[in-house]
Amino acid sequence: MDESQGLTALEVLGVAILSEIEAAALYRRLAQNVHNATLVAKLSFLREEEVKHESMLRDMYARRFPDVELKLPSRPLMPPLDAPGASTLSVPDLFQLAMRAEQLSSDFYSREAARSSDEAGRTLLRYLSNVERSHYHLLETEYDLVSRFPNYYNADEFHLGDELMHVGP
Amino acid sequence: MDESQGLTALEVLGVAILSEIEAAALYRRLAQNVHNATLVAKLSFLREEEVKHESMLRDMYARRFPDVELKLPSRPLMPPLDAPGASTLSVPDLFQLAMRAEQLSSDFYSREAARSSDEAGRTLLRYLSNVERSHYHLLETEYDLVSRFPNYYNADEFHLGDELMHVGP
Repeated sequence: MDESQGLTALEVLGVAILSEIEAAALYRRLAQNVHNATLVAKLSFLREEEVKHESMLRDMYARRFPDVELKLPSRPLMPPLDAPGASTLSVPDLFQLAMRAEQLSSDFYSREAARSSDEAGRTLLRYLSNVERSHYHLLETEYDLVSRFPNYYNADEFHLGDELMHVGP
Repeated sequence: MDESQGLTALEVLGVAILSEIEAAALYRRLAQNVHNATLVAKLSFLREEEVKHESMLRDMYARRFPDVELKLPSRPLMPPLDAPGASTLSVPDLFQLAMRAEQLSSDFYSREAARSSDEAGRTLLRYLSNVERSHYHLLETEYDLVSRFPNYYNADEFHLGDELMHVGP
């Protein structure tokens, strides 16, 4: 996102808030497509984290710009989930999309933290960059099983032993 | 843990199950010492993950050794929480302990995955190694704020803006 070069602090917060809203929506959609209770819990945890980030960012906005009404930008970091073709995405596709979103957010926060002249803003942006990177690792770990075993997310109960009996030696 | 060299598959599962039980206990204790609701939610999520791992490992044990009663080893990967001195640990200390535990577990699983001759066992151990590494990253991210701002875990509400007004330029 080279376009973010030169955003004002006010614009950075707008982009950040929108991207947390979009990320929460993506996790909500993913959770609706998954049946494994542990995976649903993981996706709910991720969604709640993004909701909390949105509120931390809104808090920061209200403190720095108490007199300026918040306007969300028209262009999010990622193509929105209601874009053409998005309705046919598989669960592994959605995981990849979420990983890409976490990576973009983490990079965005890290770059903006480096540009920030405000100590509180810098600390918050650096924290968010690190959290989104942790989320990326969490998703990457699940993606390994998600991409190999459709039963991992389709079935209520998943037993690796059962799956691999049909595959391994 | 060089001593783990040469453990049998049965012993590996015993060590793994015990270490998940200990990790869940550590997160329970940490959550009891923390007041920030978001952080409590994060620690509860981590505890539930370890409980789920314990059940995945017990499941694997029951399938591989249906006729052998499970005996937990006497020596865990980490010194137990009721060891002398453990009762006086601060919240940042406990975070460091949890990070160390995740790192040890991740290394243990990764090493044992490489030694495993069983496809299901190898896949499970590799998955667990990756998840524990994700947990490590998650804790590391929180540790940055935990170690700098006692209010981050002591207070119900935490506002970076308030904290840094008293510190920064």
